[in-house]
Amino acid sequence: MLFIVGLGLGDEKDITLRGLEAVKKCKTVYIEAYTSLLSFGLSSNGLSTLEKLYGKSITLADREMVEEKADDILSEARGSDVAFLVVGDPFGATTHTDLVVRANKIGVDVKVVHNASVMNAVGVCGLQLYRYGETVSIPFFTETWRPDSFYEKIQRNRTLGLHTLCLLDIRVKEPSLESLCRGRKQYEPPRYMTINTCIEQLLEVEQTRAESGTVHGFILSSSGHFKCSFGGGGSYSEDTDCVGFARLGSEDQRIVAGTLRELQMIDFGTPLHCLVIVGKTHPVEEEMLDFYKLKGGTLEQIENRSA
Amino acid sequence: MLFIVGLGLGDEKDITLRGLEAVKKCKTVYIEAYTSLLSFGLSSNGLSTLEKLYGKSITLADREMVEEKADDILSEARGSDVAFLVVGDPFGATTHTDLVVRANKIGVDVKVVHNASVMNAVGVCGLQLYRYGETVSIPFFTETWRPDSFYEKIQRNRTLGLHTLCLLDIRVKEPSLESLCRGRKQYEPPRYMTINTCIEQLLEVEQTRAESGTVHGFILSSSGHFKCSFGGGGSYSEDTDCVGFARLGSEDQRIVAGTLRELQMIDFGTPLHCLVIVGKTHPVEEEMLDFYKLKGGTLEQIENRSA
Repeated sequence: MLFIVGLGLGDEKDITLRGLEAVKKCKTVYIEAYTSLLSFGLSSNGLSTLEKLYGKSITLADREMVEEKADDILSEARGSDVAFLVVGDPFGATTHTDLVVRANKIGVDVKVVHNASVMNAVGVCGLQLYRYGETVSIPFFTETWRPDSFYEKIQRNRTLGLHTLCLLDIRVKEPSLESLCRGRKQYEPPRYMTINTCIEQLLEVEQTRAESGTVHGFILSSSGHFKCSFGGGGSYSEDTDCVGFARLGSEDQRIVAGTLRELQMIDFGTPLHCLVIVGKTHPVEEEMLDFYKLKGGTLEQIENRSA
Repeated sequence: MLFIVGLGLGDEKDITLRGLEAVKKCKTVYIEAYTSLLSFGLSSNGLSTLEKLYGKSITLADREMVEEKADDILSEARGSDVAFLVVGDPFGATTHTDLVVRANKIGVDVKVVHNASVMNAVGVCGLQLYRYGETVSIPFFTETWRPDSFYEKIQRNRTLGLHTLCLLDIRVKEPSLESLCRGRKQYEPPRYMTINTCIEQLLEVEQTRAESGTVHGFILSSSGHFKCSFGGGGSYSEDTDCVGFARLGSEDQRIVAGTLRELQMIDFGTPLHCLVIVGKTHPVEEEMLDFYKLKGGTLEQIENRSA
């Protein structure tokens, strides 16, 4: 049996009793390394907190390993109980669908133990989860690669009055350009997008689109959607209300509501970060957001306060 | 301190270690009764499994009580630790925003312990969570009240290729019509919408809209959205692919993928149910859905198999 166990968002205490029970009875325990190193404050040789809690050793599995050794992991799971630990919910922002598909194909039973993910925990800011539109991913821009398909999605959500969850890029174990040229495996240091970088990119794209002078609209029909262009009015601006989240679900989480311009001034501290662009709000949503708003003070004061 | 603790979706084992720790140190423990009675297999005098696990007595708090006695609960939380237990995640499908707002206003500290909710656990079927559009609620139709605003939302999601999570109506502690007339409090027995009823209502609305001959589309602009009407092509039909979930996150959960017509034939068993209307799928999503599809057999066989 393969147990895919969500660890939740904070630390080792966020596993469920069901999850812990499963891990304890497994012969082998893997943990996905994509975000876990960070969220759980682990270093590559420092799994000890979890290992102590579970009473067994844990193998760190990066994406490469999961892809290359999936067959080994699965054949192990055919004969004994194997746990695969995942930060958040197993089917949250990053997914492990491929492993499940492979398991199903060769007849290995899979049990999923759910937990909180960013996708539902953002509800804590008071914006109702059923008032969110499509989630967008904000990728790190490079000199030559500045994909901005998120723009239309945000625009669509805002037009419909819906909130938008922006998931910020994580780059872990990216092969360095040099190593690609030399055919040797060397990796870039891990990078986690901050809310500041995200906002910078969002505003750059808005600026570019505004300068091009047309804003796209959509005619939605059931047979597809057809773009039409008309002038004026962008998707969002410096003054658009947002909520920034750092280390959501952890003891030291930070949640601040404010305009894009205000949030850009704030140092949210260590990753992971995410951002919600606020749509049309109801009074109860407003009341909750209010508690997360920076009260009084100029931008300079805000900057000092959060430094 | 007021702890709002998510219990997750299955049973008493789905609480997190952090949540259990919080409950154990609280002087008073409340549990919201809206869905918990059902999901956790509790009867109104049968909280014993949870009480045994926590080592303390639990007070069942229905919506009325939370509204009427919120001040008492909060003043208690000012002097000691109070836990308020919620099925799923505290800010999932049903929200407790109002209690938090009140607590914030009078300066009572609130700590939230997150957990899985339906909103992220539906990811288990393989449809990517970031490919969902706005969530819709399907209310029980009555003779005179047949609100169908969900129709446009589903249509918009489908036009954009997005999946739609349909949350099905729950009626708990609804005052009976008779009691309203007599001014005495008497309640209807609890009702939980089944996938079958949901599909019946969805198809009824589709039928009505099709007969009226026009289907609305939307021009989305950043300054609002403008309806325009054109003929043909509905939002969904009997042949639209969907996924039905019953008791999601429980040991005996049931997940079946199929067309609306196929799923309508199936007895999913006891509540809670929810339904996902599938949008445009990627190959990996297809592969996962495939495992939940009814394989081979006529509708009669499907009906027998699931009976």
